[in-house]
Order: sequence, then C-alpha cells, then structure tokens
Amino acid sequence: MRYHREEYDVIVVGAGHAGVEAALAAARLGCSTLCLTISLDMVAYMPCNPSIGGPAKGHVVREIDALGGEMGRNIDKTYIQIRMLNTGKGPAVQALRAQADKFLYQHMMKQTMENTPNLVLRQSLVEELIVEDGVCKGVVTKTGQAYKAKTVVLTTGTYLRGKIILGELEYESGPNNQQPAVRLSEHLQELGFDMVRFKTGTPPRVHGDTIDYSKTEIQPGDEEFRAFSYETTEMITDQLPCWLTYTSEKTHQIINDNLHRSPMYSGAIKGTGPRYCPSIEDKIVRFYDKPRHQIFLEPEGRYTNEVYVQGLSTSMPEEIQLDMLRSIPGLEKVRMMRAGYAIEYDAIVPTQLWPSLETKRVENLFTAGQINGTSGYEEAAGQGLMAGINAARKVQGKEPIILDRSQAYIGVLIDDLVTKGTNEPYRLLTSRAEYRLLLRHDNADLRLTELGYEIGLISAERYQRFKQKKALIEEELERLNQEKARPDEHTQAILKEAGTKELNNAVSLAVLLRRPELSYEHIVRISPPPKELPKEVTEQVEIQVKYAGYIEKQLQQVERLKSMQNKRLSPDLDYEQIHGLSKEAREKLATIRPLNIAQASRISGVNPADISILLIYLEQMNKTKKNA
Amino acid sequence: MRYHREEYDVIVVGAGHAGVEAALAAARLGCSTLCLTISLDMVAYMPCNPSIGGPAKGHVVREIDALGGEMGRNIDKTYIQIRMLNTGKGPAVQALRAQADKFLYQHMMKQTMENTPNLVLRQSLVEELIVEDGVCKGVVTKTGQAYKAKTVVLTTGTYLRGKIILGELEYESGPNNQQPAVRLSEHLQELGFDMVRFKTGTPPRVHGDTIDYSKTEIQPGDEEFRAFSYETTEMITDQLPCWLTYTSEKTHQIINDNLHRSPMYSGAIKGTGPRYCPSIEDKIVRFYDKPRHQIFLEPEGRYTNEVYVQGLSTSMPEEIQLDMLRSIPGLEKVRMMRAGYAIEYDAIVPTQLWPSLETKRVENLFTAGQINGTSGYEEAAGQGLMAGINAARKVQGKEPIILDRSQAYIGVLIDDLVTKGTNEPYRLLTSRAEYRLLLRHDNADLRLTELGYEIGLISAERYQRFKQKKALIEEELERLNQEKARPDEHTQAILKEAGTKELNNAVSLAVLLRRPELSYEHIVRISPPPKELPKEVTEQVEIQVKYAGYIEKQLQQVERLKSMQNKRLSPDLDYEQIHGLSKEAREKLATIRPLNIAQASRISGVNPADISILLIYLEQMNKTKKNA
Ligand SMILES: Cc1cc2nc3c(=O)[nH]c(=O)nc-3n(C[C@H](O)[C@H](O)[C@H](O)COP(=O)(O)OP(=O)(O)OC[C@H]3O[C@@H](n4cnc5c(N)ncnc54)[C@H](O)[C@@H]3O)c2cc1C
Ligand SMILES: Cc1cc2nc3c(=O)[nH]c(=O)nc-3n(C[C@H](O)[C@H](O)[C@H](O)COP(=O)(O)OP(=O)(O)OC[C@H]3O[C@@H](n4cnc5c(N)ncnc54)[C@H](O)[C@@H]3O)c2cc1C
Repeated sequence: MRYHREEYDVIVVGAGHAGVEAALAAARLGCSTLCLTISLDMVAYMPCNPSIGGPAKGHVVREIDALGGEMGRNIDKTYIQIRMLNTGKGPAVQALRAQADKFLYQHMMKQTMENTPNLVLRQSLVEELIVEDGVCKGVVTKTGQAYKAKTVVLTTGTYLRGKIILGELEYESGPNNQQPAVRLSEHLQELGFDMVRFKTGTPPRVHGDTIDYSKTEIQPGDEEFRAFSYETTEMITDQLPCWLTYTSEKTHQIINDNLHRSPMYSGAIKGTGPRYCPSIEDKIVRFYDKPRHQIFLEPEGRYTNEVYVQGLSTSMPEEIQLDMLRSIPGLEKVRMMRAGYAIEYDAIVPTQLWPSLETKRVENLFTAGQINGTSGYEEAAGQGLMAGINAARKVQGKEPIILDRSQAYIGVLIDDLVTKGTNEPYRLLTSRAEYRLLLRHDNADLRLTELGYEIGLISAERYQRFKQKKALIEEELERLNQEKARPDEHTQAILKEAGTKELNNAVSLAVLLRRPELSYEHIVRISPPPKELPKEVTEQVEIQVKYAGYIEKQLQQVERLKSMQNKRLSPDLDYEQIHGLSKEAREKLATIRPLNIAQASRISGVNPADISILLIYLEQMNKTKKNA
Repeated sequence: MRYHREEYDVIVVGAGHAGVEAALAAARLGCSTLCLTISLDMVAYMPCNPSIGGPAKGHVVREIDALGGEMGRNIDKTYIQIRMLNTGKGPAVQALRAQADKFLYQHMMKQTMENTPNLVLRQSLVEELIVEDGVCKGVVTKTGQAYKAKTVVLTTGTYLRGKIILGELEYESGPNNQQPAVRLSEHLQELGFDMVRFKTGTPPRVHGDTIDYSKTEIQPGDEEFRAFSYETTEMITDQLPCWLTYTSEKTHQIINDNLHRSPMYSGAIKGTGPRYCPSIEDKIVRFYDKPRHQIFLEPEGRYTNEVYVQGLSTSMPEEIQLDMLRSIPGLEKVRMMRAGYAIEYDAIVPTQLWPSLETKRVENLFTAGQINGTSGYEEAAGQGLMAGINAARKVQGKEPIILDRSQAYIGVLIDDLVTKGTNEPYRLLTSRAEYRLLLRHDNADLRLTELGYEIGLISAERYQRFKQKKALIEEELERLNQEKARPDEHTQAILKEAGTKELNNAVSLAVLLRRPELSYEHIVRISPPPKELPKEVTEQVEIQVKYAGYIEKQLQQVERLKSMQNKRLSPDLDYEQIHGLSKEAREKLATIRPLNIAQASRISGVNPADISILLIYLEQMNKTKKNA
C-alpha cells in the first residue's frame, strides 16, 4: 500500500557524511528538506577509521568549511587529537588530520541536524523513486510512505545490495551489520542506471588495555592551535595519543600461509577494492618485498577502550585475524573486540552525472558520496555539500554551482568522476590536482569564502571577518612589494645572522623574503608592518611571496584552462553530426556530454585532434549564429 | 569451518540488560568470562521506554544493587530525571523511577564492562551450542569460532527469530533493525527445547521542538536526594521534565477506523503480547468505554530532541501512526522521527528451568531475561544477575543461590516463571508478591546485602557501612520499645499539637509512634535518641514500627512457608511411583520437578489433596531412611 502526504523541496536519502552535508545545505538555503535514513542511531557514522583529514582529504574539509558545510565545525568539536601532517614539506601537501571521538561525532552531527530549521530527519528505508517522464518527483519508503519533492539527492554509501564477507562467511548486510538497501539498487537498475560492484574493508578493533604500548612509538597531537573550521576559535587541549607499530615477518608469514582462505584471493570477493586503501593481504601480496608495514593504533573515542588498528584492513577468517594481530609488536596479548570484514556494494557509474551531480538520465535526481564510486568520508561530504547546494538551487531556479579544478579539490574530485569515471573506489590524492600550489590547505577560505557567501551558506558576519583578513593580506603584500630594504647596518646584521648574503642595493622586502634562508619574521625585524598582524595573515603573506613564481605559473595555466572552459558545449549536442571525430571520441563525448572544451579534453579517448575539430565546429556555429 | 581456541569458565551470550549483569557478576566472582553480543554499539540498549524503575521494577533494581549488580549504579550515573512514585501511598508500593539518557546509559555500561577484570567483551553472533551427552560445553559463532566454557548463559532477548511488523510490512529483524538470531533458535529447538512465540511493541519517537508543551502537564523530577544504588552519594540536580497529555476522542476514532489495517487484528501477529504493556490499539479495543488514556512525553536523552511517546505503543501503518499522534493535545503539529513497530520473537518455556535458571534439559546451560518469557529491562537484569551468579557458582562447585518469595521480588519472578510458566510476556507487578510489606523498596539492602556479601559481590567496605546502618536501626528500635513517654507537660503539648489523644499512663515510644497522627519526628521531639540519626536509618525505624503488626503477620506466614520449603523433594523423584496423585498433578510435578513442597503447592493443577499425599510420601521416606 502506498500512502501520499508530505511534500518537500528537497529529499535527501541517507545521513552518512554525504547525506548530512546535503541535507544541512539544502535546509540552510531555505528549502524545506526531508532527510531519510535507515537508522537514526548511525547519523554521520564512521564505519572505518575514526579520523578526519589527511592529505587531500583535509583540504576537502577546509573547502567544505569555506563553503559553509558542517564537517570542519563538527570535527573541531569532537576530536581527541589533532595534528598537522607534513610540516617539514611544502605548503601544498601540509594538511590537518584529527582523530575523532566517533560516538560524539555522530551525536553532535545528529543534534545539529535536529536543530536546523527547515530540516526534517526521519528513520526510513527508501526503496523506490517516483519518476514520471524522466523526472524525479519523490521517493517511496519500505513502509509505503510516498514523499514528493522537487529534487532528490541519493547518498546511500555502501548500503546498496551490501554484502559482508569475512573468511568463508558471506551475508547480505550494510556496513557494521546495518540493514542493507536491496530494493533501491534493483530499482536504480530498472531505471536504466549502469551500476558497478565495488568493495571496501575495515580492520579489527582491539581492547586498549591489552596493548603493550612500550613496544610502540607514541604519536601525540599538536600543542599549537589547530582547527579545520575557520570559525573555530578554541582548541581541545586534553588530547589522547595514537601509537605506531609495524607488521612483523610473522604477520606476513601468517597471511601468506592462509591466502587460500582469504576471500580476496579465493574469488569470493567480486567487487573491486580501493587501490589506495588496500587490505593487508593485498599489501603483502603486491609489495611482497616490503619487510614491514606501518600499523597505527587509534582510540575510537575518549570513553571507550576500543582501539582501531589502522593498516590492518582484512577479510581473513576471524581466527587468522587474531593470529595476525598477535604477531605485531605490542599486540602479543591483544584481545580482539570486533573482527575486520570486507563489504561489497553497488555504485552508480559516475559518468552518468552532470558536473552538478544531477543524473543525466533522471532529471532532478542527484547522487553524492560513495554511491558515486568514491571512498572516504571527506570525499563523500564534499560531494554531499555540492549536491545539496545544487538540488536547492534547482528548486530555486538558479544555475548550478560547479567548482573547477583550479578552485578546489572538490572540483577535481567531481570533474574526475563525471568526466573519467572510475574503475575502483576513487580516493582523492594531492597528485590528482594539477594546480596543487593553488589548492592549498591554508588558503581554502581565500579560494571559496566569497562563493560560499554568494551561495548563501556563509553568514554576513563571517564574510565581514573574511574580508578584513583578505584586506590585511593584500595591504601587507602591497607593502612588501613597495617597501625597500636598504643595505643599512640594522638590516645587514639581521641578514648576516640568518646566514644569507648581505645587500648591495636596496631591494623590495618581497624579493628579500623569497630568499630560502629568510622567513617572514626576519622581514618584520628588518621592517615591521604599521601594526602587528595575526598569524593567519602573516602565514598567507609568507606563502604567497615565497612561492610567487610557482603560483604565478599555475595561475597562467589556469587562465588557459579558463579560456577553454569558456568555450561551452551544449549538453544536447549531437556528436553524430560533427564530421571527423574518431569513433571512440564520438562515443565518449555522447556519453559524457562535457559542458565545455576543457572538460572534453580530459575525457580519455578524446585526442587533441578531436578537440581541434570541436573547436572548429564551435567557431562555425558562432559564425552561423552571428549571421542569423 | 569451525575453529577452536579459547576456553573460559563462563560464556554469556548477549549484552542486553540480562547479559551485562550475568557477565559482570561472573567476572567479579573470579570466573574468566566471555560475553558475546551481536553489536558492540548496542550494549545495554533500551529498545523501548528510556526509563528504569517504577513499581515492582524499581524494587528489583534496588535488589540487584543490594546483591552487587550494576543496574542501580549505572542509572544513578546517567539519568536525566528521577522521581519517587506513590509517595502518597504506603511504603510497599512506593518506588523510584528514573528517565535515562539512553545513549549515556549504554556508554557507561559498556565502559564498565570494558574495565572489569576477567571479562572479555566481543562482537559475535552465536549460532549453536556445543552440547555433549546433555552437557553444555561451549558455543559456536557465525564466523565459525568455537569457544569452550564450563557454563553458558543465554540472554538473547527479543532476537530469536525476531520479526518486525509494522502495518502491512513484515521482515526478519532484531529490535531496532538489528540482526536477528535465526539459527540459534532453530538449534535450541533441535536440542529439544519447547519454545513459544511472543510479541512486544514500541511507540513512535517524535521531535521535541514540534510539541506544544503548553497543552500538556509538566512532570518534574524530585529535588530531594534519591538514588537507586545504596552506594550513590550524589544526585544529578540538573534534571529534565517529562510531560503528560492524553489521547483524544479523535485518536480513538482513527484507531477504530483503521483496525482492519492493524497487524494485531488482521491476524498478521501470531505471537502473544504483554497484557500489562498493551499497544494503544489493544487498549482502545479492550477498554472501549474509557474516554482517554495517559500519554507521557519522555526525552530520550539530554543531547537529543527525540522524545518517546509512552502509552502509544503501536504497530499500525506509519501514516496512521502520524494521524494518531496529531490527534493528541500538544502534538497537533508533531514531527515523527521513528515509527513504532511490533516485534515477534521466540522464547523458551521457562518451566524447563530449575530455580537456579539452569535448564533441566542441558546441564551447565543457563538462560535469563526475555528469552525466559519475561518483559522489561529490570526483570531481565534481575534474572541475568542470578544466572551469572549461579553459572559462576556451578563452575566453582558451589550450591546455587535461590531467592525465595519472601526475600525478593527477584525470587517471586523466578519462582513464577519456573513453577507456573507464562502464556504471555511476563511482567512483574507488586500484586504478584504475597509478602509485599516485607519486600519493600526501602529495605532491599536489609533483605539482601548480607547475602550479596556472602556471594562475594559486595565489598567488605560496603558491608561494614551496611552493618553500621543495621546496628543503628536495631538500637533505635530497641530504644523506642524500651523507653517510655510519660504524660508530662512537654509530651502532652506535642501530642495535643499533633491532634492526637493525650497520655493517661506512660507508654513506650514505639506504641506512641504507631498512632496514625504521629511521625518519627514527633517522637524525636518527645524524646530524642542519644545522637542524631541519618535519614536512611530513621526511615526504616519509622516504617518498621508503624507497620509492625502487618509485618509480624507476614513474617509468621513466611515461617509457615519456610517449613514447607524445608520439606525437600528430590529433582529426580519418580512421581509415577507415588500412588494417589491425580493424573494432572503427576504430569505437572514430573515436568516442573519442584525442589520442595512449597514450590509444589504453587503449581497450578497440584491440589491440597496432592500435597497431602506428597507429605505422607516424604514422611514414609524419612522413616525408611532412618530404619535403614
Ligand atoms: C567496512 C568499511 C570500510 C571502509 N574503509 C574505508 C577506508 O579505509 N578508507 C576510506 O576512505 N573509506 C572507507 N570506507 C568508506 C567510507 O566509510 C565511506 O566512503 C563514507 O562513509 C561514505 O559516505 P556516504 O555518506 O557516501 O555513505 P555512508 O556513510 O555509508 O552513509 C550512507 C547513508 O545512507 C543511508 N541509506 C542507505 N540506503 C538507504 C535507503 N535505501 N534509504 C534510506 N537511507 C539509506 C544509510 O543509513 C547511511 O546513513 C569504508 C566503509 C566501510 C563500510
Ligand atoms: C520493540 C520492543 C518493545 C518493548 N517494549 C517493552 C515495554 O513496553 N515494556 C517492557 O517492560 N519491556 C519492553 N520490551 C522488552 C525489553 O526491552 C526487554 O525485556 C529487555 O531488553 C530484555 O533484556 P534482555 O537482556 O533479556 O534482552 P535484550 O535487551 O534484547 O538483549 C539481548 C542481547 O542478546 C544479544 N544476542 C541475541 N542473540 C544473540 C546471539 N545469537 N549471539 C550473540 N548475542 C545475541 C543481543 O545482541 C543483545 O545484546 C520491549 C522490547 C522491544 C524489542
């Protein structure tokens, strides 16, 4: 029986990391929003590592925050440890990583959802979409409730036809033994969507009191102020350490001896796993000459003894898992509390999406998160935010927001997905970005706050603060470029002390700062700014001056990209009509339907020759239009 | 594949309210204990009302505490409101009730488990028992792990072949969409256990901000110091209120109009529900002339907006549930967050158990909680504690602890179950106890601390404190009985003021206190004790003096009971050999195998004539023994 009653602007299916961002964004943009999820006890649940951030992922969290999303704020309220990674390396690869109190993270996110106006959060399993003439009009739940909506966002994670695999055991299940979503996956296939089968896995959890920490290395959090969100002003100082140990020869022996019982190698697992989050059995097989692998021991929360064994993701039989654990220094007597497992699930082939994350096949239907073939909380959250924004904008008759590859990692992520697709759970890496020096962790606000404010997710007050910061940076940059350091005694002494060449002539402070031996602090001593500047300002100034050459080069590349991006291709373009395209290019273009020449050029199988033909075609069209 | 490795003294299957008490007790008694549970995220989970206590149930919590169990301590640490019920009535029916922060309750209990020596807590689904020659030797999990143990306690709650029913929808599931335990139930039947099918249900949860509280009555917590545990010394003062409203004529109309869609009445539900926790559709049908029913609105925690709608348990289709909710004053605009549902499950016929909670059919196998046909967290916890104690004692070669009906509500509960069985989910009520005035909420420590200490679950320090309290009570009782009030001016003035007759002759303070107009405070004014006494002492003194007559009468009855209890029946007695028993009595006795004449006399179908025959038989046996 089907029962119709409520109508919403936007319905979000799922309250994982993608779903919560989508629902919060839509509601905050003024849309009446319904978020349906299988279990209200699992809102923003982390089925795997209890941590947020890291290279590329941390960047995404900062971008989400700059655009007005929730992940950054939520982790800042609930971490048990926070740490800047790669502090010894360049600014492009530095990134924050926090260990979450997993339970608190969920509770806080749920509370935020509950307290957000326009947002209705409800426990319900969605089984079908209401689609009329290729347009999505709502959803139907397992209990027969039909909800209408102007747009729908699917964020079903690893639940679609989920199957848990553990040794010889297999059973239908969502992650962490949650109910799977079987019917919805079938329904998506009936609607004509191409689906793929992926898999991912998680390591066992052990009891912290049974670890001999003396055999491990401590990994404390940072004492310096750190935060993901540009709104956070206070830091949690009472942090818990993590611990580092390694697999041993014995571990590798146990795994090799039992490979025949590994579902990865016995053929039981058919889904494709994530190359960059491999299981330990995968690592041992693929990197057989590596004598040991890192194992991080990470507490799952402040008030639990469960410890996550990062690096030991596995679907080996339970007894082998215990043997593996006990072969690791420090874990000789460890007690396992939960076994690791692998999970297979269905995902949508993401080339079926527009860059707005709306599906091409069904209008007003958006998808975000792991359902789009990605892996990772942050990747999911970034997509969720964009899908939520665009679902709301569609309701409001506005153009979608599409971040480009020079603007944000989120742009890189979505462009990769919709343009190239993926053969395995896609993970964001800094190496995927061609403008890494522009897409820094530190400057996410400079890149995106303006846009977040225009979209309507950044408050006027926060925007004002941001503009002040930006003005201070610009003033100081201006000063460094204008003001000159002269070869006077004071200056020469400082330079000498810093171990750099003394001055012959006056040079601008900026030129001086570019010397590797000098930091912004030296410049302040040589010539201080009119009034003291906050660290967030001086940090920007320093990076922008020091890396000015590289940044300039990348900005020039971006200009070229922009001009290609401005050459728009109609989504309805009939590539059959364009002569001279290779067969492969024609097919790919007709499938992907790129929105501009830049996107077209990134499609694998579309060659420079094809691009030239497209450019000629566009010119002709323009001429015809002008003549008409 | 089956893998053998670990061995324990005691294995507890399940970490619900029964399982946690069983596991903690066994571990604290020095047994190496393994507790296996389906989900570590659901330890001590409350699938229904977020509250502990109330009449009879509150008594049980106090008894658990006096015996060294955990429930009282845990709720004292995690409530959001606490209140003494029936303060206007006699001491036999007064009882504490607390609203729990449901999430915190779970976390605290899990932490206590994690931090208890000898106790291993592990996520695993048990599918079979290892039984050899009628003796239980361990368990086997779904992942093929075989664990050996000297005794096993099953506390599987509503998970055995669980089926959720909601309107026209039915699916296999444990409570709250957890994984059900299907194979274990089949296995128990294969082992020859008689099973019954029961059902229970839960109401919808709503969003607190969508309630118009102005149309409801506030129910605040008590300001006076209250605690379940005799160890608790501080109270949570920042309490949240609950709210009272009522069903309306319209609610009843909606339910009546849709009875054909109710699984209760359409025949979809085959299990028997709890008479004393009926669904709202049941209440409307059975009490059709009652114009309205109470509905309590209870927050599910301090940091959530979910509110439990007590009194509206239902398995109506979801859209009818919403209509029902919105017909209730204060809920006109309410938003439902989770729908109510009914759940059917298998339970063991509890007459298959000895009073120790060991099964008759399989030695060393104990069962406790809802699997034994009860309903309620406290009933489960009470049984869990006793099963845990007795499983540990069996390992240690000690006699089981059997509480009798005059000692504890837990004794009443277990005796009812194993002697009479139950046709429906059994709920404890004060009316089930024949010695209500002895089994008071206030004197649980006096009844049971001594025993708890002997068992080994009460610390020496706590026992010392208890003995001091007991001594003070006895001294003061002694004084009140010895010391006389004389008709002097001071005394007469107090009596006059209290509105009671003045004295003619000297009478003992105790006699005076028995007057309805006088309280212990008056007595103190007439003649104070040598030094001021704590409230917990004076409260006892007052109740024991005021109700001395009734208490005395019940104590005499208990003496008679005791003499019947001392007439022991061998568990192996061959009732076929005893001539003169009625056919029904013979059958029942052979099934129940009562341990003494008192228990035999409570078996339905065993009449006084049968009891006389048993008594004669026992006398003859004694004579034969003496002569031999
Ligand atoms: C076992 C395991 C191991 C993993 N390991 C890693 C790892 O090592 N590294 C890594 O980066 N990532 C890992 N991941 C992936 C990471 O957890 C996900 O990428 C991330 O959680 C995806 O977020 P999401 O919001 O897309 O989906 P999820 O967080 O899975 O949330 C999906 C949401 O949708 C809801 N839902 C699903 N179907 C329905 C329906 N029909 N109706 C209503 N609601 C529905 C669910 O209830 C849930 O709220 C792992 C995941 C799992 C399960
Ligand atoms: C929907 C619903 C409504 C209810 N309404 C009421 C009510 O109104 N009033 C009332 O008094 N009571 C009610 N109850 C009953 C109350 O919740 C139970 O009586 C109480 O929780 C029983 O405690 P327990 O420990 O016996 O079982 P549970 O609390 O159910 O715990 C069972 C434990 O066993 C574990 N388990 C089960 N099978 C296995 C296995 N094979 N292997 C490993 N672990 C296993 C589970 O994971 C769980 O930890 C309701 C219960 C439900 C589900």
